[in-house]
Amino acid sequence: MKAIKDSVHGHVRLGDVAAELVDTPAFQRLRHIKQLSTVRLVYPSANHTRFEHSLGVYHLARRAVDGLGVDDDTAAHVRAAAMLHDVGHGPYGHQTEGIIRRATGRDHDDVGWLLTDADREVCQVLERNGLDPERVAALIDGEGALGPLVSGELDVDRMDYLVRDAHHTGVPYGTVDTGRLVTELRLIGGDEAGASADLVLDEGNVATAESLLVARSLMNAVVYRHHVSRVAGAMLERACERYLDRTDADAESFRRMADHDLLVELRDRVPALGERIERRDLYKRAVWAELDEVPTGTVDAGRPEERAAEREIADDVGIDRDAVIVDIPSRPALKESGSAVVVDGVPQRLEDASELVTGLRAAERRRWTLGVYCPAEHVDAVGTAAREVLGLRATGRPPA
Amino acid sequence: MKAIKDSVHGHVRLGDVAAELVDTPAFQRLRHIKQLSTVRLVYPSANHTRFEHSLGVYHLARRAVDGLGVDDDTAAHVRAAAMLHDVGHGPYGHQTEGIIRRATGRDHDDVGWLLTDADREVCQVLERNGLDPERVAALIDGEGALGPLVSGELDVDRMDYLVRDAHHTGVPYGTVDTGRLVTELRLIGGDEAGASADLVLDEGNVATAESLLVARSLMNAVVYRHHVSRVAGAMLERACERYLDRTDADAESFRRMADHDLLVELRDRVPALGERIERRDLYKRAVWAELDEVPTGTVDAGRPEERAAEREIADDVGIDRDAVIVDIPSRPALKESGSAVVVDGVPQRLEDASELVTGLRAAERRRWTLGVYCPAEHVDAVGTAAREVLGLRATGRPPA
Amino acid sequence: MKAIKDSVHGHVRLGDVAAELVDTPAFQRLRHIKQLSTVRLVYPSANHTRFEHSLGVYHLARRAVDGLGVDDDTAAHVRAAAMLHDVGHGPYGHQTEGIIRRATGRDHDDVGWLLTDADREVCQVLERNGLDPERVAALIDGEGALGPLVSGELDVDRMDYLVRDAHHTGVPYGTVDTGRLVTELRLIGGDEAGASADLVLDEGNVATAESLLVARSLMNAVVYRHHVSRVAGAMLERACERYLDRTDADAESFRRMADHDLLVELRDRVPALGERIERRDLYKRAVWAELDEVPTGTVDAGRPEERAAEREIADDVGIDRDAVIVDIPSRPALKESGSAVVVDGVPQRLEDASELVTGLRAAERRRWTLGVYCPAEHVDAVGTAAREVLGLRATGRPPA
Amino acid sequence: MKAIKDSVHGHVRLGDVAAELVDTPAFQRLRHIKQLSTVRLVYPSANHTRFEHSLGVYHLARRAVDGLGVDDDTAAHVRAAAMLHDVGHGPYGHQTEGIIRRATGRDHDDVGWLLTDADREVCQVLERNGLDPERVAALIDGEGALGPLVSGELDVDRMDYLVRDAHHTGVPYGTVDTGRLVTELRLIGGDEAGASADLVLDEGNVATAESLLVARSLMNAVVYRHHVSRVAGAMLERACERYLDRTDADAESFRRMADHDLLVELRDRVPALGERIERRDLYKRAVWAELDEVPTGTVDAGRPEERAAEREIADDVGIDRDAVIVDIPSRPALKESGSAVVVDGVPQRLEDASELVTGLRAAERRRWTLGVYCPAEHVDAVGTAAREVLGLRATGRPPA
Repeated sequence: MKAIKDSVHGHVRLGDVAAELVDTPAFQRLRHIKQLSTVRLVYPSANHTRFEHSLGVYHLARRAVDGLGVDDDTAAHVRAAAMLHDVGHGPYGHQTEGIIRRATGRDHDDVGWLLTDADREVCQVLERNGLDPERVAALIDGEGALGPLVSGELDVDRMDYLVRDAHHTGVPYGTVDTGRLVTELRLIGGDEAGASADLVLDEGNVATAESLLVARSLMNAVVYRHHVSRVAGAMLERACERYLDRTDADAESFRRMADHDLLVELRDRVPALGERIERRDLYKRAVWAELDEVPTGTVDAGRPEERAAEREIADDVGIDRDAVIVDIPSRPALKESGSAVVVDGVPQRLEDASELVTGLRAAERRRWTLGVYCPAEHVDAVGTAAREVLGLRATGRPPA
Repeated sequence: MKAIKDSVHGHVRLGDVAAELVDTPAFQRLRHIKQLSTVRLVYPSANHTRFEHSLGVYHLARRAVDGLGVDDDTAAHVRAAAMLHDVGHGPYGHQTEGIIRRATGRDHDDVGWLLTDADREVCQVLERNGLDPERVAALIDGEGALGPLVSGELDVDRMDYLVRDAHHTGVPYGTVDTGRLVTELRLIGGDEAGASADLVLDEGNVATAESLLVARSLMNAVVYRHHVSRVAGAMLERACERYLDRTDADAESFRRMADHDLLVELRDRVPALGERIERRDLYKRAVWAELDEVPTGTVDAGRPEERAAEREIADDVGIDRDAVIVDIPSRPALKESGSAVVVDGVPQRLEDASELVTGLRAAERRRWTLGVYCPAEHVDAVGTAAREVLGLRATGRPPA
Repeated sequence: MKAIKDSVHGHVRLGDVAAELVDTPAFQRLRHIKQLSTVRLVYPSANHTRFEHSLGVYHLARRAVDGLGVDDDTAAHVRAAAMLHDVGHGPYGHQTEGIIRRATGRDHDDVGWLLTDADREVCQVLERNGLDPERVAALIDGEGALGPLVSGELDVDRMDYLVRDAHHTGVPYGTVDTGRLVTELRLIGGDEAGASADLVLDEGNVATAESLLVARSLMNAVVYRHHVSRVAGAMLERACERYLDRTDADAESFRRMADHDLLVELRDRVPALGERIERRDLYKRAVWAELDEVPTGTVDAGRPEERAAEREIADDVGIDRDAVIVDIPSRPALKESGSAVVVDGVPQRLEDASELVTGLRAAERRRWTLGVYCPAEHVDAVGTAAREVLGLRATGRPPA
Repeated sequence: MKAIKDSVHGHVRLGDVAAELVDTPAFQRLRHIKQLSTVRLVYPSANHTRFEHSLGVYHLARRAVDGLGVDDDTAAHVRAAAMLHDVGHGPYGHQTEGIIRRATGRDHDDVGWLLTDADREVCQVLERNGLDPERVAALIDGEGALGPLVSGELDVDRMDYLVRDAHHTGVPYGTVDTGRLVTELRLIGGDEAGASADLVLDEGNVATAESLLVARSLMNAVVYRHHVSRVAGAMLERACERYLDRTDADAESFRRMADHDLLVELRDRVPALGERIERRDLYKRAVWAELDEVPTGTVDAGRPEERAAEREIADDVGIDRDAVIVDIPSRPALKESGSAVVVDGVPQRLEDASELVTGLRAAERRRWTLGVYCPAEHVDAVGTAAREVLGLRATGRPPA
C-alpha cells in the first residue's frame, strides 16, 4: 500500500483504486483549492487544501467501513465516494458554490454529471476497477444506507474537517474523538449490502456525538464565521459575479478553475475588488446586526432582494454600487441534531437524547449576524443608510 | 529565573519566592498526590500529580496578573496563593476531602490554619519575602477581588486542570484556549490594589468562556465521573473510614499522608478493600439509576442515611456490610455559569449571555447517576434489595 | 475488542489474550512501577508507569507482526511477550535491577522462572489460550528470529519508551516515526514460523533508523542521565542496599514490591536516606568528572571497588559512610548501531550504513560522567578526598 | 497588543511597528509565497507560507532580545528585521533564488535596495517609527553583533522553520526546543548596543544546539531533499528560465510575482513544463548518483556546464532539450557547525564541542545525490547517455 504522510492522521494508506484516483487531473486539482478559502486572512496558518482533506476523509471512511461488516463491493464504492466527495467544488470551495448553483443549477455534491461525462479519467479509473460511477455519485449525494457516512449528519467529511481546521488554524476547539467515532458506527436493520439499513452510533456515545456538535458550534463562532473572513468572502463572491458579467467565461469553465486562476483573473479583470482581496485591503463593517434587530422579511431575503438593497444604499450615499455589500446568512440550523444514537438499546435522534442540542441551537441563533460592508471611508454614511433600507430595529447596544 | 519543564505549558519559569516555596516539604509532598486519584484505573496514562498542576496554576496566574495592572505586592500574593492552592489536600485529593471535612471541619481550601501554624516552613518562606500568610490564605479561599482568579468560576486552577487532564488521559475534550483566557481577564471598578473590583472576561469572549464550560461538561461525562473511577473512589472512601475507625490515626495525621502511605496502610490494615484497590479488583454496579428514578429524599440523603441504607441492603442480602456501597452524588450544578463576561460593553453573568449554559445544565442533570456497588457475585441480590430500600422507581430502560 | 485510551497511541485495542493478561495481579502491579523512577524529580510530569508502556509495546508489536506475514500462532506469542516484557521488573524498574541481579542472579528480562513458576495466573492465562509460557519467556529474552522485535536493537520497547518519555517529560527530542518503523520491518530468510530469519528495516529507512539513535542520544543527554536523576537514583540504590542489610526482607519479596511499598519502607527503615528521597532533599555533586579525567581502572571498577572507595573517602573526611556515594556508569555504548537496514537491496548493519553512528558514539563518550555525591555541607571536603582516592586527573576546566 | 493565532506558537503578539508592517503590500504578498515550494507535492499538508513563518520568526526574535539586555532601539531594529527577513524572496522562495541572483546579482537576503527604494510603504512605516531602514537591512544580511540572530547559524529563522515544517509535513524529526534556545542566547563582550559582541548559547546547551543540527539533517533527508520535490523544483526552475527567455518579463517584475502568478504564467506560456507542474505529472529519475560515483569536475560544475550536458544528453537520445534536466546540488555543508556554545565557561565553536558534528557532516556527504530527470518514456535512454556524458563511475549498486 502506498502511504501518504498527513499532518492530522499520521499516515494515510491508499488502496489500489485510491492510488489511481489520486493521479487523475480532477483529484490533483484539489491541491489548488483551499479548504477554508478566506479564513486564512484571519488565521494565517489555515492554508490546507481539499486535497489532503479528501485523503483524510478517505482514511476515516476506510476505518469506518472496516467495522460495519458490509460486503467488499459496497466498501469499495464507499471508499471511492469518500475520496471523490469534493471534486465537484469550484475555486474557493463553498465561497463560489452559490454562484455556480445559480448559474448551473448544480451543487458541489451533485457530481453525477461529472463522474459520467466530463471527467473521463475519473470514470475510467472507476470502471477499470469494476466500480459503478453512478453508484459512487449517489453515495456522494448522501443516498442509500451508507450515503450518510459520506454526506450526512455524522459523516466522515465533518469528522475530518473539524479536526483538520483546528490543527491548521491553531484553535483548540475543533477536537473530536474521530478514533472513537469511526469505530462506534453501526448499521442496524437492512440487508447485507446495507440497503434500507440505518447508520447509528452505538450505545454509550451521546457525549461523543455531542462533542462533534460542540466542536462545530465553537468553530462556527471563532473560525468559520469570523467577521473578517465573512467580509473577504462577500467581496470575493461579488467580484466573481462581476467577473462572470464582464467576461465571456462560462459557468462550467469557472467551476473548473483553481484558486490561483481565480485570484489572478479577479485581480486583472475586476481590479477594484480583486486587488483588495489579494492584498487583504478589506471593506469594513458598516452594520453588524443580530437576529432580534432584523425584520423577518430581511432575514429571509433572497439574492435579488439583497442586490436591490445594496443598490439602494449605494445610491442613497452616492457611491459606486460595488462599494456596498449586504451579507445575510441563511437562518441558523444545527444539522447534526438528527443523528441517530443508540440509548438504552433504542436508536434515538441526538436532539431527543441530548438536552445540549437545545442550548447549541440557541447559541447558533445568537451568533447569527447580518453584515453590511463598505470601504472604511464610507462606514458611517453606509451604516445609516443601510439600517434605514433594511429596516433594522434600534437596540440599546453600542455598535460593534 | 529557574525554569521547570512541563508537559503542558512547555517551560514554567519560577520567580524567587516560587523557587523557595517549591523546596518546602509541604509543596514537595504534592509530588505524591495524584491529580485524578482513581481515574488512572480507567485512563492508565493519568498519573499526573498536584505538584505539576500547582506549577501550572502558578504559571497561568503569573500571566494573568501581568495583564491586570495590579500593584507588585498584590501580584506577589496572588502568585503565592496560586502555587499553594492545593497544599491543604489530603491523600488522593478530592477523594478524601469529605472524610477530612467531617473529621476536622475543614476543606482543602481552608488553609489559614495551615499557613499560620502547622507548616512552619511555608510560613517562613512567605514572611521572609515580605508576604502575609493570612492574605495568601484568604486568596486561596477565594476572598477579595482577586480571590476568584485563584478559586472561582473562571479560575486558573480550572484552566490548568482541564487542559492537563485531557493531555494525560488522552481524551480530546478538555482543550481550552488558556493562552487567550489569561490575557482577556480584566479587573473593572475598584482601587489599585484591586479591592472591590470585579474580575471579568473582556468583550468578545462569550465563546471562550463557553468553551471552558463545554470542556468541563464533556470531561465530566467521559473522565471525572466514569463509573469505574467512581466505584474505585467509593471503595477508597469506605476503606479510609474503616481505617480511621480501626486505627488510632488522628484526622490530621491522615490528612498529611501521601498517596503511597495511604495505599500501603489500606492494604495492610483494611485488606478486604485495600488489596482490591491495589489490584484493581473492583466491585461491580448493582444499581445505576438516573435522576428521574430516584425519590427526592434519596437524592438529598446525607452520609448517615447512605450508611443506614447500606446496612439495610447488606442485612437483607445477608452479606458483610462493607460489601455494599451506596454512592449518591450531590445535585448537578454548573459553577462557571456565574462568570462575568463583558458583552456590548456591559458585564453580564455568563448564564445570561449564553443560551448554551441552559443546555449544559440539562446535560449535567441527565448525567447524574446514583450507584450501588458490591462484589460481582452479589450484584443481582444487592440490586433487587437496593432498589427496594432506596425506593427507586421502575423505568422501561434495560439495566446498564 | 476492548479499547484502552492511551495518551500516546490514542486507543490501544486489546485482543482476548491481552484482555485476560491485563487483569492478572502481575500485570496490574505495573501500574505501581514508574517508567522513569527518579527522573520525575527533574521533569515533574514524568509520572507514567510501566503499565501503559506495556500496553503501548503490545500495540506496536501487534502492528508490526501484522505486516511480517508470520503465522497466527507465532504472532500470538509475540504479542503476549510484548505485553509481559516488563513484569519481571522490581520496584523503581532499572534502578533496582543491579541489586536484584546481584542478589538473585537474574535480570528483569529473565522471566522464564516467573512464567513457569511463581506467577500462576499469568501462566494459566497463557496455557488456557494455547500459548507456551516458555516460548513467551524466550521471546522476552530476545531469542529466535522475532525475539529482537521484543528485545533487541530496534525493538518496539524502545520505540514506545522514546516517544512516551518525550511526551511525558515535555522534552521535544524523543520523537520517532513509530508509524513508519513498525510498517517497514521485514523478516528475510528463514521459514514460515520465522525460524532463523532476520529482522531488518526495509529499503529507504536509514534516516528512520538514525532518528531512533538520535532520539536516544538526545534523551540520554537531557533526560535519562540528568545529574539530579542520577543523584537521586544513586541514593535510592544505596538505601535499598541498606534496607536489605538491615531487614530480613529476602530478594524475591523485594523484587515483588511496588514503588509505593519501597518508598514507605525506605522512609521508615532507612530514614537517613529514605526521608531525603521522599522530600527531594538530595545530595549534591562533589565530583563530576569526564572520561578523560578518570583512570581506566576507575572507569572499569566493579561494585566492591566503588564501595571501598566510598568508605575510604568518608573515613578521610570523617563522616558517615552512607554520606558518600560514588557513581561510575558503565562504559558508553550505542546498542542500536548493529540494527540491520536494507540498503541498495543488501541488509547492512546500521553502523556500516550510517556515518552518523560514529558521531553519536563519540557524543556518548563525551557525555559519560563519573559522579561523587554527598550532603551539601561536605561537598568541598568530599570533592578533594574523592579526586585523590579515585586518582582523577586535573583538567583546566572549572568545576561543574 | 494585537494577537494573531499561529498553529505553531499559539498566539503571536504584535507590537505597534509590527502591526503596521503586517499591513504593507510587501508583507501581505508573503501570504502567497509558500514556505516549502514543491515539497507539498510529496507532503500534501505542507502548504504553509512565508507570511506565518515571518510572524513566527518575529515572535522568537522578540523573546530572544528580551533576554539579551540590549537597548530598546537595538531591540526594535532586530524585531523589524526578523519580520522583514523574507520580503526579498521571489515566487516559490528558494526555488527561484538562483535565477534571480543570476539575473539581478542579488540574493533574497540582500534587501537594502528594497527597503530604501522600491517598497516605499515598508520604508515609510520604519521611518515613521524612528527606525533606520539601512540598519534593518544590514541585520537581515547578518551584519553586526545581532545580525546572526536574524541570519546566522543559530538564527530564529531556522528555529521557526524546522518546527513549522515538521508541524505541517507531519514528520516528527524537526522538533527543536525553541523555548529553551531563545532564552539561552547571550551576548558576550561588546558594548551596550551590542557592537562587536558575540552571540553565544549559554553553558549547558551543547545538546540543545546539537538538536538543531540533528533536526536539520533529518529534515534534509526526508523532506527538503526528497527526490520528488527535487524533480518538481528542477522542472520549475527550467520552466522559469524558459519563461524569462520567451517573454519580455524583466527580472524585477519576475521577483515580485506571487506563487499564483507564476503558476498561471508558466502553465500559459511554458505549457510543456507548466501544465505538468500544475498537475503533478512529473519527470522521472534517469540517474540518481551518489558522491563517489561522480567525478570532481562534475560535482563542481556551474550552471553553463549543466546546461551543456543537458543539451548533449538530449541530442544523443534525439529528444527535445527541455526533456532532460541535470540537477547537481552544491557540495554538502553543515552551516550550524560554527555556532558558538559556552562549554566550561569558554565559548567554543559547536564543531569543536560536539563530536556529533563530524557524524552529521558525513551523513550530509552520503545523502548528496546528483539527479538526471526526464519523461518516463525516455528514462532508459537518457540514463545511459547521461552516465556517459557526465562521466559517472560504475558501482555495484542496483539502480534507484
